[in-house]
Amino acid sequence: DFEAALSEVQPAFGANTENLSKAMTHGIIDYGDAYRHLANTLRTLVSQVQNSAKTPMMSVLLEGPSGSGKTALAASAAIASQFPFAKIISPEDMVGYSEQSKGSQITKVFEDAYKSPLSIVVLDDIERLLEYVAIGPRFSNAILQVLLVLIKKQPPAGRKLLIIGTSSAGDVLEPMGLSSAFNVQLHVPALRGAEVEAVMMADSSFAEADLREAVETLVSLCGSAVVPVKKLLLWMEMARQELAEPNGPIPLEAWQKVLRDLANTR
Amino acid sequence: DFEAALSEVQPAFGANTENLSKAMTHGIIDYGDAYRHLANTLRTLVSQVQNSAKTPMMSVLLEGPSGSGKTALAASAAIASQFPFAKIISPEDMVGYSEQSKGSQITKVFEDAYKSPLSIVVLDDIERLLEYVAIGPRFSNAILQVLLVLIKKQPPAGRKLLIIGTSSAGDVLEPMGLSSAFNVQLHVPALRGAEVEAVMMADSSFAEADLREAVETLVSLCGSAVVPVKKLLLWMEMARQELAEPNGPIPLEAWQKVLRDLANTR
Amino acid sequence: DFEAALSEVQPAFGANTENLSKAMTHGIIDYGDAYRHLANTLRTLVSQVQNSAKTPMMSVLLEGPSGSGKTALAASAAIASQFPFAKIISPEDMVGYSEQSKGSQITKVFEDAYKSPLSIVVLDDIERLLEYVAIGPRFSNAILQVLLVLIKKQPPAGRKLLIIGTSSAGDVLEPMGLSSAFNVQLHVPALRGAEVEAVMMADSSFAEADLREAVETLVSLCGSAVVPVKKLLLWMEMARQELAEPNGPIPLEAWQKVLRDLANTR
Amino acid sequence: DFEAALSEVQPAFGANTENLSKAMTHGIIDYGDAYRHLANTLRTLVSQVQNSAKTPMMSVLLEGPSGSGKTALAASAAIASQFPFAKIISPEDMVGYSEQSKGSQITKVFEDAYKSPLSIVVLDDIERLLEYVAIGPRFSNAILQVLLVLIKKQPPAGRKLLIIGTSSAGDVLEPMGLSSAFNVQLHVPALRGAEVEAVMMADSSFAEADLREAVETLVSLCGSAVVPVKKLLLWMEMARQELAEPNGPIPLEAWQKVLRDLANTR
Amino acid sequence: DFEAALSEVQPAFGANTENLSKAMTHGIIDYGDAYRHLANTLRTLVSQVQNSAKTPMMSVLLEGPSGSGKTALAASAAIASQFPFAKIISPEDMVGYSEQSKGSQITKVFEDAYKSPLSIVVLDDIERLLEYVAIGPRFSNAILQVLLVLIKKQPPAGRKLLIIGTSSAGDVLEPMGLSSAFNVQLHVPALRGAEVEAVMMADSSFAEADLREAVETLVSLCGSAVVPVKKLLLWMEMARQELAEPNGPIPLEAWQKVLRDLANTR
Amino acid sequence: DFEAALSEVQPAFGANTENLSKAMTHGIIDYGDAYRHLANTLRTLVSQVQNSAKTPMMSVLLEGPSGSGKTALAASAAIASQFPFAKIISPEDMVGYSEQSKGSQITKVFEDAYKSPLSIVVLDDIERLLEYVAIGPRFSNAILQVLLVLIKKQPPAGRKLLIIGTSSAGDVLEPMGLSSAFNVQLHVPALRGAEVEAVMMADSSFAEADLREAVETLVSLCGSAVVPVKKLLLWMEMARQELAEPNGPIPLEAWQKVLRDLANTR
Ligand SMILES: Nc1ncnc2c1ncn2[C@@H]1O[C@H](COP(=O)(O)OP(=O)(O)OP(=O)(O)O)[C@@H](O)[C@H]1O
Ligand SMILES: Nc1ncnc2c1ncn2[C@@H]1O[C@H](COP(=O)(O)OP(=O)(O)OP(=O)(O)O)[C@@H](O)[C@H]1O
Ligand SMILES: Nc1ncnc2c1ncn2[C@@H]1O[C@H](COP(=O)(O)OP(=O)(O)OP(=O)(O)O)[C@@H](O)[C@H]1O
Ligand SMILES: Nc1ncnc2c1ncn2[C@@H]1O[C@H](COP(=O)(O)OP(=O)(O)OP(=O)(O)O)[C@@H](O)[C@H]1O
Ligand SMILES: Nc1ncnc2c1ncn2[C@@H]1O[C@H](COP(=O)(O)OP(=O)(O)OP(=O)(O)O)[C@@H](O)[C@H]1O
Ligand SMILES: Nc1ncnc2c1ncn2[C@@H]1O[C@H](COP(=O)(O)OP(=O)(O)OP(=O)(O)O)[C@@H](O)[C@H]1O
Ligand SMILES: [Mg+2]
Ligand SMILES: [Mg+2]
Ligand SMILES: [Mg+2]
Ligand SMILES: [Mg+2]
Ligand SMILES: [Mg+2]
Ligand SMILES: [Mg+2]
Repeated sequence: DFEAALSEVQPAFGANTENLSKAMTHGIIDYGDAYRHLANTLRTLVSQVQNSAKTPMMSVLLEGPSGSGKTALAASAAIASQFPFAKIISPEDMVGYSEQSKGSQITKVFEDAYKSPLSIVVLDDIERLLEYVAIGPRFSNAILQVLLVLIKKQPPAGRKLLIIGTSSAGDVLEPMGLSSAFNVQLHVPALRGAEVEAVMMADSSFAEADLREAVETLVSLCGSAVVPVKKLLLWMEMARQELAEPNGPIPLEAWQKVLRDLANTR
Repeated sequence: DFEAALSEVQPAFGANTENLSKAMTHGIIDYGDAYRHLANTLRTLVSQVQNSAKTPMMSVLLEGPSGSGKTALAASAAIASQFPFAKIISPEDMVGYSEQSKGSQITKVFEDAYKSPLSIVVLDDIERLLEYVAIGPRFSNAILQVLLVLIKKQPPAGRKLLIIGTSSAGDVLEPMGLSSAFNVQLHVPALRGAEVEAVMMADSSFAEADLREAVETLVSLCGSAVVPVKKLLLWMEMARQELAEPNGPIPLEAWQKVLRDLANTR
Repeated sequence: DFEAALSEVQPAFGANTENLSKAMTHGIIDYGDAYRHLANTLRTLVSQVQNSAKTPMMSVLLEGPSGSGKTALAASAAIASQFPFAKIISPEDMVGYSEQSKGSQITKVFEDAYKSPLSIVVLDDIERLLEYVAIGPRFSNAILQVLLVLIKKQPPAGRKLLIIGTSSAGDVLEPMGLSSAFNVQLHVPALRGAEVEAVMMADSSFAEADLREAVETLVSLCGSAVVPVKKLLLWMEMARQELAEPNGPIPLEAWQKVLRDLANTR
Repeated sequence: DFEAALSEVQPAFGANTENLSKAMTHGIIDYGDAYRHLANTLRTLVSQVQNSAKTPMMSVLLEGPSGSGKTALAASAAIASQFPFAKIISPEDMVGYSEQSKGSQITKVFEDAYKSPLSIVVLDDIERLLEYVAIGPRFSNAILQVLLVLIKKQPPAGRKLLIIGTSSAGDVLEPMGLSSAFNVQLHVPALRGAEVEAVMMADSSFAEADLREAVETLVSLCGSAVVPVKKLLLWMEMARQELAEPNGPIPLEAWQKVLRDLANTR
Repeated sequence: DFEAALSEVQPAFGANTENLSKAMTHGIIDYGDAYRHLANTLRTLVSQVQNSAKTPMMSVLLEGPSGSGKTALAASAAIASQFPFAKIISPEDMVGYSEQSKGSQITKVFEDAYKSPLSIVVLDDIERLLEYVAIGPRFSNAILQVLLVLIKKQPPAGRKLLIIGTSSAGDVLEPMGLSSAFNVQLHVPALRGAEVEAVMMADSSFAEADLREAVETLVSLCGSAVVPVKKLLLWMEMARQELAEPNGPIPLEAWQKVLRDLANTR
Repeated sequence: DFEAALSEVQPAFGANTENLSKAMTHGIIDYGDAYRHLANTLRTLVSQVQNSAKTPMMSVLLEGPSGSGKTALAASAAIASQFPFAKIISPEDMVGYSEQSKGSQITKVFEDAYKSPLSIVVLDDIERLLEYVAIGPRFSNAILQVLLVLIKKQPPAGRKLLIIGTSSAGDVLEPMGLSSAFNVQLHVPALRGAEVEAVMMADSSFAEADLREAVETLVSLCGSAVVPVKKLLLWMEMARQELAEPNGPIPLEAWQKVLRDLANTR
């Protein structure tokens, strides 16, 4: 089953999945329906590309607030697909290169993908690939034009390609014509309500007795019941650091101290 | 007869029509009067260029919403013309090249065309050729100036040329002076009402009994009775993927599931 | 007589008039007073440059709507002058060159002109030479500055020069300081009323009996009684294409079909 | 006496005055007080640079409407000075060069001037030197900065320099800080009233009996009693062209025809 | 204890701390609670990076008014950490380099850091690294994009990294997405009230009897009771200059004269 | 005594003071309190850099209207300091160089200064160094960033540096962050009231009996009692030019004629 595959993170044969699994340092926690709908839809798209004869190309955009888990979702779907070609195009690997060079590197990955019968390409953090900044606004039109074309270009006969984009600036991609260039758009929300609890319960991070109070502290100090999964896991890690045994439950006081410090300083 | 020719897609001798036919993966479906008027006018223009002595050059712009079938129409007209020179200038073949290089490549195709007694050049997705983006707005003025001149330039004595442009950004080409630089402008609309039904009926994609309900589902989930032919055919293909026999009719449930999923995620 | 000379298009000795005559594919039709005033004034300027000792340089701008006949007028005046040096500087011959290169090519033509005792230089489609586009607006300031200086620069002692510019963007040239840099500005209007009829009557394009109805059809389908001569001649050519004998009169039905098709599609 | 010197245009020994005298094709006509004040002030500045020990550098800007005679005034003052170094820096001699190259050429002239004990440099048509255009506005900041510094820079010990700038865009030079960088600013107005008459009377261009009517025609067809000297002299030259003897008086009819034609076409 | 370590400034083995200690010419004065909270939080972050397994990377932004002590705080934390790799990236060391070169130099430091098991990188004066200026505004998007990625990029397996940024333009970094890219943001305020007194008392800079009046002079001449520590220490140094013995207390008159002079001239 | 030193302009040993003294063609006139306060403060800053151990670097900005004497003040302070290294960085010496080159030249002077135990660097006419123009506004951000860093950068251990900047565009330097980057800001005003008289009295430029009337003429023709010292000295020089003996007093009539001419022409 797909979810199981996602959690197990089985590396596909022949695909370099090291970079992909690096994107899931905290694993994938099944935090509820919202997660399952996302995982499900990605699974369907993977299998459609694999099976349908007349849709050799599919593209899906994962869009949502910073830290909501977009990259991890994309990476886990890519790994679970077991497609012979699976690659992530990430701004991290192109630091300091010129627009032109970045455009070429992106194009190169697609050309490699076209050589494999079945491929997945993850375009991670698209606004960063575009060198976007809100002041101006400025961005690389050269890279944008490369993406606009590659996202719609059919692979050669007999090749199949799934493109997964991620972005925390969906509203910016819209007027660029990038959002609507994807066949499907999926929203990846931050955690809310019971989802927060589900993540805090996972791996017995808190003693069951402490859970309710731990959540209440979070809500009262955050000023909001909505929190991105990436931030929540970072705070839990900060609270965990003075534990005697690394995998024991987080004491309430450690949790409260971390949240109070951060609330103080922001 | 022209329509027949369009559907049969007979490759012209001596013209490289591979790229042209690639633009019609789903064939050409006669979905009603609107289609026939478009096909007719294109046919007239082809024959005028072929026959008239004093109009060695004609240019027509196919303009309409994304996915309405502009490229397929242009390609099929080019193939049906059987002109010895028929070429599509597509952004897909120029990914990542510089403005200057793109300008040269475009010019080169026209210069080649001038060497043939009868030529068709398709300028596909003009806003993409221009590297247009709404923010700014930005675009390549170098490429725009090349197009503005080439679209009005007379071929040398004894040569004849038909230019077919396609664009889903007609409102943008207007202030650039590009729309009015074409001799004729044709609007290619999205499907509406009976046209949608005609496409769904074609190739017995749905069992006749299901057709009415299939259309109703589409309208209610789309929130609109207007849909571009390209999207409609993609959704049908998605619904078809779990069929036992690839060419059988699409079951209503599969159709409803696909549309519901997409409506959910957008 | 000048008009006769214009119609006869006698190539001047030593001047390359091929490009110039290419600009008059449909000849010059005397469509009334407006035309004659324009032709007259051009003739006067030609002879002033030829004769006056203290005005070795004259410049005139032909400005008017797209297709009103500016280039043909300039070319015919240049040919009729029989000046030993007569050259048209046209954007068509500089497609894809850089601003700098275009600037040099323009300068080169003027330098060649300065070597001849009597010269005419036609600066055709000035807004295109300037790579002008309304969005922005953008244009080549490098080329503009070249034009601004060349249009006012005196030829060397003993040399005489007439510069004829054409533009369908007079309102744009004004704030650039280009319009007022010309010694004389002439407006070339589109055809209206009796002028339209005069052009349709020329060369017996219509049977006399059909003329009134042909004109009425034009006015009612155009939504206006004003039409540029270039468009009118193109439409007539389109209507002429299914004629048995190429020079026979245009049947009313053919004329009506062409106009109806075009009205439909715009 | 200075005025006499201006009219006689005696070339200074050792100074290349060819380009300077080219700027006065129509000579210098003493048209009244306004002219004499301008000529006088220029003379005073010339002699101050020549005589004063503590003002080795003076700069004066001649600013006024297009064609009002700025360049001719500057050139005649430069020639009359008989300074061993007298040079005009004109946009005409730098057509098509890059900003950088223009900057260097300008700097070079000043460096040459610094080698002569007494120099005059005319910076002609400063807005054109700056590649200024009102749309934007755009201009070469590189050239502007060169001018801003050179206009204030002291020549080396023992060298003296007078800089005369001309411009018909005084309002533009102001916010650039260029106007106030000149030590003195002089306004050169267009002709008005009796001044117009004075110019028309000079060299017996009109028969005395015709003068009043000739002036009246001008005023009524111009719609204004203000006219730049350069334009007035051009129109007179146009009217003169059909004369039997080149230096005879201009017949009233010829004058009226020229003015009527121009009024018509504008 | 951490504070002690900060004051003692013990250079870490193997780390080049020369540039770091240069940033603390006036040492670190414990001026009250605000200082201790800042020092404390920095200490916690240092130890978390050192100890936690799942947070190999931490980033903190020190933001506050000009001269409030950001760089000194960052430098002292870096030195006190005794991490084997500790480096400050400062605009001072990149004067006059191109954007590209600056981007490379910054990237290089991070790549060096990735080779050490434990590293601290100080990004000093981020708005200056970005070549920011409020007019426009302008800044280097190339450098910004480098920072945006490097601040979020995970070091390779087994490496740990603490990034400390400093900026006196926090409001500018916000719309650039830079502030929120840091895991933690700390505000470094100017001195106020008792904090001012604490700094003036340190090292017996004033005779105890003079302190109250010295503070009052400052407040009345400054027009405000808020002053950045860097400015306060500079003024004290100016007042100290005419002392007989360099470490004696500052006489009231010297203090008053310095403040009065500065108040006068501003 | 400092003032005496300023007037005597004693060149310091080892420092190239030629360029510095060139900035004081008219010497330094003690025109009153305002001048003495400025000269005094500069003297204090010079001696602080020389003596204080903990302030190896000081920077002061002289800001005021065009011609108020900023450059002369800076130059005289630099010469009087007798520092072994004293250099003026002036736009005059960098005419026509590229931004990059200017940036390097500026940096080079600072690097040279860092090699001397005691240095003064004058940054003259900062807005010109920055290639500033109000239209846009435009300026060299590359040069600005160089200045912003160099003005705050500490010299190496054991080196001491005084930076004196001059600018007549203080309001422009403010939003660039340049004004506040200087440790001290001094306003250099134009002359007013008794100061004007003091300058006119100096060196017996006017006969005592004429003084009152000479001042009144100035005020009435200037339309204001405020005048920059540089302009006043220029006008006096112009009035002096027709004197029999170069150092005699200026006759009232000569003075009135000069002022009247200038008032006329502006
Ligand atoms: N169900 C889940 N979905 C996504 N991520 C999860 C889930 N459960 C745990 N995680 C962990 O949460 C983190 C999500 O971070 P990730 O980088 O994917 O977020 P992001 O939205 O891409 O952030 P950014 O907006 O910064 O790019 C990862 O470390 C991942 O291992
Ligand atoms: N009558 C028809 N006209 C056009 N296309 C048709 C028709 N019938 C079927 N099709 C199919 O519909 C699709 C139309 O897609 P096409 O790429 O031509 O649209 P488009 O308007 O060019 O899209 P875009 O705006 O993305 O460029 C093609 O796959 C084509 O085979
Ligand atoms: N009296 C006339 N004046 C001008 N052109 C005429 C006349 N009679 C016939 N023609 C024909 O009309 C056409 C005018 O086209 P032309 O290219 O000169 O127009 P234009 O105003 O330059 O167009 P554009 O604005 O596109 O540059 C030519 O083919 C010319 O032969
Ligand atoms: N008193 C006069 N002052 C100036 N020019 C005169 C005078 N009398 C006659 N002229 C003639 O008038 C013409 C003035 O033209 P000139 O080019 O100097 O004007 P301009 O103001 O520089 O024009 P532009 O604004 O185009 O640069 C010259 O041909 C000159 O010979
Ligand atoms: N508690 C303290 N915190 C910070 N700095 C202190 C403290 N006590 C003394 N100092 C001294 O104050 C000065 C602070 O200057 P620093 O350059 O760090 O300020 P800054 O905020 O980085 O300034 P800028 O905004 O110009 O970058 C240093 O010389 C430092 O030695
Ligand atoms: N007390 C004084 N202070 C300054 N300058 C004086 C004084 N007395 C006489 N001068 C003379 O006045 C002139 C001042 O000119 P200076 O170039 O220094 O002015 P500035 O303010 O730098 O001008 P700008 O704004 O053009 O740069 C010099 O020639 C100098 O010799
Ligand atoms: Mg991500
Ligand atoms: Mg298309
Ligand atoms: Mg034309
Ligand atoms: Mg001129
Ligand atoms: Mg700092
Ligand atoms: Mg100065």
